[in-house]
Amino acid sequence: ATIASLLAREPVPQDLAGRHALVTAGPTHEPIDPVRYIANRSSGRQGYAIAAALSARGAGVTLVSGPVSLPAPPGVALVPVETASDMLAACEAALPADIAVLAAAVGDWRVTHPGTAKLKKRPGQPAAPLSLTVNPDILASLSAPGPRRPALVIGFAAETEDLLANAADKRRRKGCDWIVANDVSLPGDGSPGVMGGDRNQVHLVTADGTEAWPSLDKREVADRLAARIAAHLAPHSLIRNSP
Amino acid sequence: ATIASLLAREPVPQDLAGRHALVTAGPTHEPIDPVRYIANRSSGRQGYAIAAALSARGAGVTLVSGPVSLPAPPGVALVPVETASDMLAACEAALPADIAVLAAAVGDWRVTHPGTAKLKKRPGQPAAPLSLTVNPDILASLSAPGPRRPALVIGFAAETEDLLANAADKRRRKGCDWIVANDVSLPGDGSPGVMGGDRNQVHLVTADGTEAWPSLDKREVADRLAARIAAHLAPHSLIRNSP
Repeated sequence: ATIASLLAREPVPQDLAGRHALVTAGPTHEPIDPVRYIANRSSGRQGYAIAAALSARGAGVTLVSGPVSLPAPPGVALVPVETASDMLAACEAALPADIAVLAAAVGDWRVTHPGTAKLKKRPGQPAAPLSLTVNPDILASLSAPGPRRPALVIGFAAETEDLLANAADKRRRKGCDWIVANDVSLPGDGSPGVMGGDRNQVHLVTADGTEAWPSLDKREVADRLAARIAAHLAPHSLIRNSP
Repeated sequence: ATIASLLAREPVPQDLAGRHALVTAGPTHEPIDPVRYIANRSSGRQGYAIAAALSARGAGVTLVSGPVSLPAPPGVALVPVETASDMLAACEAALPADIAVLAAAVGDWRVTHPGTAKLKKRPGQPAAPLSLTVNPDILASLSAPGPRRPALVIGFAAETEDLLANAADKRRRKGCDWIVANDVSLPGDGSPGVMGGDRNQVHLVTADGTEAWPSLDKREVADRLAARIAAHLAPHSLIRNSP
């Protein structure tokens, strides 16, 4: 952007003032033993950008983040966590919230019996297989009906196959309002993949259908999503049959 | 350090000029599927500091590094890798070398059959256990006798239990010359553990016995190790019965 275009940028409307938004971001790390863990390629950048975009529109933002190497956006309350179980507990502690945007790549599984000492390789012996246990489902938990359910719960789907069918199915199964569907099989711009890359090709899946968004960088996805959230929660949207 | 003490610091001797040093650093990432992987808590800082210290003494340094968020030290040739298999291939390609310092935290195991598409959680079904295969042993490979064996091969041992016994046993079993033994069960200075922390409490295990070094920051460990390497390789050391 040129300096002129930056100066000409319209001020961000404060249409989320008074709202509390909970955002999750980054990977989770699920320990195998004191030094090893299962991780995933999430950089956290999409979630951090969403937290920044919601904060810029006036929302109070709690950002529950797995291990990443990103600074907290200004004005955002950062709660660092490691495992999926930690992340669920931190999310529940952050309620009530008007908006929940669950952008973290939560590990589906944890190691059933993590070692309390470093596991040792035994020469000549095969490795014991790692037994896995399903982690708590943070999106389904926060989407469950009840007095503390945020008015708008948004999940993410990172898929390598059958993106839209899987995302629509996930929306119904989890009980959330919207799904931001992200095709991680597409190559990123010089990066090893979209997960961890700079640009996202997303579809927004709602009860009304699916919108294809153009290829955008993560900040543009965040700004567009924050504007859609603000429009959805604005007083005139209350007359719509929503979410 | 004060400016006066920096100005007063003695110039580093160029006693490794003409030597080629191979250094490994960081964790390896062993893929589970396109988005998930097994990792470990190595920050890469100790290996990067050793590469910088050897380079400062005049060595040509090839630094084979797993995924870390550190810049390459000035003058060092960085070869980025992901898995243990990649790291072994990059090390072999970097030979011949006079010195090999294998500071990477190489994953002992890889997933036997990584998924080519993202593994999906099946509601109501338990997770299939992850079958693991032993990775190639980079330290043992580079320590094996032969015309391409570096004159001085140095391994690292990160242990939570029985540090010195395990380190001495590892030195004999792998066929390397020295082991830098690092007690990762000690708490770091405000960090989650020594692995990833700023200071190391190390012992140097050689054929002659074991030296306990004081608690040092990673740059001090690197400087001390580089000085020991230079002394060992200096012409007058050839009259010693070493390594």
